[in-house]
Amino acid sequence: MVISLAHLGPTGTNAETAAIAYAHWLEQQQGQKSILCPCPSIAQTLFAVAKGETQRAVVPVENSTEGSVATTLDTLWQLDDLKIQQELVLPISHALLSRGSSLEGIKTVYSHPQALAQCQSWLERHLPSVSLIPTNSTTEALSEINLQPTSGAIAAPRASKLYDLPILANHINDYPDNCTRFWVLERTPTTRGQSRVSLAFSVPENVPGVLVKPLEVLARRHINLSRIESRPTKRSLGEYLFFLDLEGSTENDCIPDALKELAGYTEVLKIFGSYSVVSFTQADIDRL
Amino acid sequence: MVISLAHLGPTGTNAETAAIAYAHWLEQQQGQKSILCPCPSIAQTLFAVAKGETQRAVVPVENSTEGSVATTLDTLWQLDDLKIQQELVLPISHALLSRGSSLEGIKTVYSHPQALAQCQSWLERHLPSVSLIPTNSTTEALSEINLQPTSGAIAAPRASKLYDLPILANHINDYPDNCTRFWVLERTPTTRGQSRVSLAFSVPENVPGVLVKPLEVLARRHINLSRIESRPTKRSLGEYLFFLDLEGSTENDCIPDALKELAGYTEVLKIFGSYSVVSFTQADIDRL
Repeated sequence: MVISLAHLGPTGTNAETAAIAYAHWLEQQQGQKSILCPCPSIAQTLFAVAKGETQRAVVPVENSTEGSVATTLDTLWQLDDLKIQQELVLPISHALLSRGSSLEGIKTVYSHPQALAQCQSWLERHLPSVSLIPTNSTTEALSEINLQPTSGAIAAPRASKLYDLPILANHINDYPDNCTRFWVLERTPTTRGQSRVSLAFSVPENVPGVLVKPLEVLARRHINLSRIESRPTKRSLGEYLFFLDLEGSTENDCIPDALKELAGYTEVLKIFGSYSVVSFTQADIDRL
Repeated sequence: MVISLAHLGPTGTNAETAAIAYAHWLEQQQGQKSILCPCPSIAQTLFAVAKGETQRAVVPVENSTEGSVATTLDTLWQLDDLKIQQELVLPISHALLSRGSSLEGIKTVYSHPQALAQCQSWLERHLPSVSLIPTNSTTEALSEINLQPTSGAIAAPRASKLYDLPILANHINDYPDNCTRFWVLERTPTTRGQSRVSLAFSVPENVPGVLVKPLEVLARRHINLSRIESRPTKRSLGEYLFFLDLEGSTENDCIPDALKELAGYTEVLKIFGSYSVVSFTQADIDRL
C-alpha cells in the first residue's frame, strides 16, 4: 500500500522537502512507498489527516531561530485523534531567488513570515530599504516574481530549479545552524524505537505553583524536559495551555507513572505520542 | 515637558489606539502631555527608545487569542537598557473595511497576520474562498484598497473614519473577549504603584529539573506566575530563554529575595521592571 503524505505546498516549500526526506527514509528503512499531497495551509494539512483524506501529515513544529509554529500547536490541541508517529529534524538554508542581476536592483522581497524573520539581519545589512512582503509559504510568490526583475523571494535553494529562478544570494539565514523540527502525524500511531514523548495540558486554576506541581512530577523522576511552550487558551487573557516534550519513552516505566500522576495536577491532559527522532544533514537534503 | 511615544504605525493601528489611550491616561492622572511617533515595525519602535529618539515606546506583548508577540520578546532580550514602566490592557475589536457593497463581492482580504489569525473562523464561515494577504500592520493596505471594491482589510473600527472606508462587517474577531497587553517602555523607569514584575532568563544546561529550580524559588514564596513563555536562544535547536511575569512588586520583600535566589539557578537573568496594569474598557476606547 502507498502511504499519502499531506504537507504545506506549493512545490518547493521546506515542508515539502521534509516530506520528500521522510518518503525516502520510509522506503529505505521499511520498503514503504508514499505519495505527496500538497495543502494550502498548515491547518489544512492537519485537517487532511483528521478527516481521513490522507494517511499522514508532515508539519513544522519549531524552528531554532523563530521558535514554535503556533498554528501547529493550536490545531493539534483542537483535534483529538492525531498522534505523532515520527520527528524529523532538517537543516533549513535560505536563498534569495530573483530574475534580477544584482542586489542593488531589488526593491521588494517576498516570503513566509518565518523565513523573513530567519533572515532579518541579512536583509537589514544587504537590502535595508526594500519592502518585505509576507506570503503564505516560501514558494507562493515564485511564479509571479519570475516576471519582475526588481522582486526577489526567500526560499529553499531547491526551489531555484523547480521555478527556474536564479539564486542571487545563498545561505542568507542569520544563524548557520538554522533547523526546523517537523512532526509526522497520523490517526493511529505505530509504536517503534521511541526517544521522546509530547503532551499538552491546561491547569485547573491560576494559583501560585500551579505549574511547579506538574514539573516536579517530572523532575522527581529525572525526566528531562526538552521543551516547554505556553499557548493562550483563547478564552481569557492570562489562561494558558502548556506544551511539553519529554526525553524518554512510554515503554520506560517512569514515564507512564509520571503521566498518571500528571493527570491529577492538570485540567485537560492530552498525550500526542511517543516517537523517535530522525535528523537529516545538509548532504542528505542535497541528495534528494 | 512633552513626552514622545513611539508606536507601530501608520495611523489607525491598535498600537496607536493603545498609545492614544495611554496619552489620555497620562494627561488625566499626571497632567502630562505627550506626542505620538509612528514607526514602521515593532522592532523599530523599540530601537527608537533604545537610541534615545523617543522617550517611551508602546508595544504589544501578548494577545489573548494569538499569544506572545515574538518580535517584542526577542528584541527586548537583545536590548539591555529598556524597562517596563506600565502595562496597558485593551479590548481589541476587528472590523472588515471595504469600498465594496456586499461580502459576496470580496475576493481579497488584507491584514496583519495577528488580526487574520484572530478572525480565522469568521473568515472560514463568511469568506471561505477569498485570498488572505498578510501585511506589516492592520492599516498598511487601507489607502490602496480604497480604490478596489473587491478588496477588504481587517482593522480596528476606528480606522474606518481615518481612511474613509465603510465597515462591511463589525466585531468579526472569533473570541469576544479578545484583548491585547501592551508595555510602555523607557530607558529609566519611574517607580509607581506596582503589581507585576517581568523578567527573562537562560538556564545553565539542559539537564532534568533545570526549569523546576527557578519555579520552585517562586512557588516556595507563594509568588504567582501569571505567565511563562519560552523563546529559542537561536544558537541551537532545544536551547531556550524563559520569559516570566510575576504577580507582586519589587517593593515587596519576598520578590527581591526570590530574584536574588533566582540568579543562582540561571545563566543570564534580566529584570525588565516592576510596574502596574491599567485596563481600558471598550467604552473608554470609543470615547478617545
